[in-house]
Amino acid sequence: MSKFMDVHSGMTGITTEMLAQAHSADLAIQDEEGVSFERAWADPVSGTVFCLSEAPTAEAVQRIHERTGHPADNVYEVPINV
Amino acid sequence: MSKFMDVHSGMTGITTEMLAQAHSADLAIQDEEGVSFERAWADPVSGTVFCLSEAPTAEAVQRIHERTGHPADNVYEVPINV
Repeated sequence: MSKFMDVHSGMTGITTEMLAQAHSADLAIQDEEGVSFERAWADPVSGTVFCLSEAPTAEAVQRIHERTGHPADNVYEVPINV
Repeated sequence: MSKFMDVHSGMTGITTEMLAQAHSADLAIQDEEGVSFERAWADPVSGTVFCLSEAPTAEAVQRIHERTGHPADNVYEVPINV
């Protein structure tokens, strides 16, 4: 297991409700890939969303996001953190 | 005050010690701009670093990072989070 930060773009105008809904959809199926989404942050002006997770691989994170209809542009493994 | 996520690139090979040192340098002067850096995550393979902060403006975040020698590529205001 490692930490991952994934980044989505094109979410201009995203609201708190939309982010909560997308996050809930991920949480509902994350166990199937051994992923644990921890937090998410959204910039509605640029349309950028960041999700922090713990997961076995970047591909597992992406599979969950794809199945819930919001694939990430990039999934970064971030084993180093302070 | 709002939340910000800033992103740095070009840090390929960054170590835990390097991230801790950069973060400490930011913490040492952050009060001068009213910034509070909370956490940072690094991907040594792609060289990407993410920093989460609370600050009055994106420019305040960037001024701290510039003064400590590691300007961000982008500073995103992320008022929406779960």
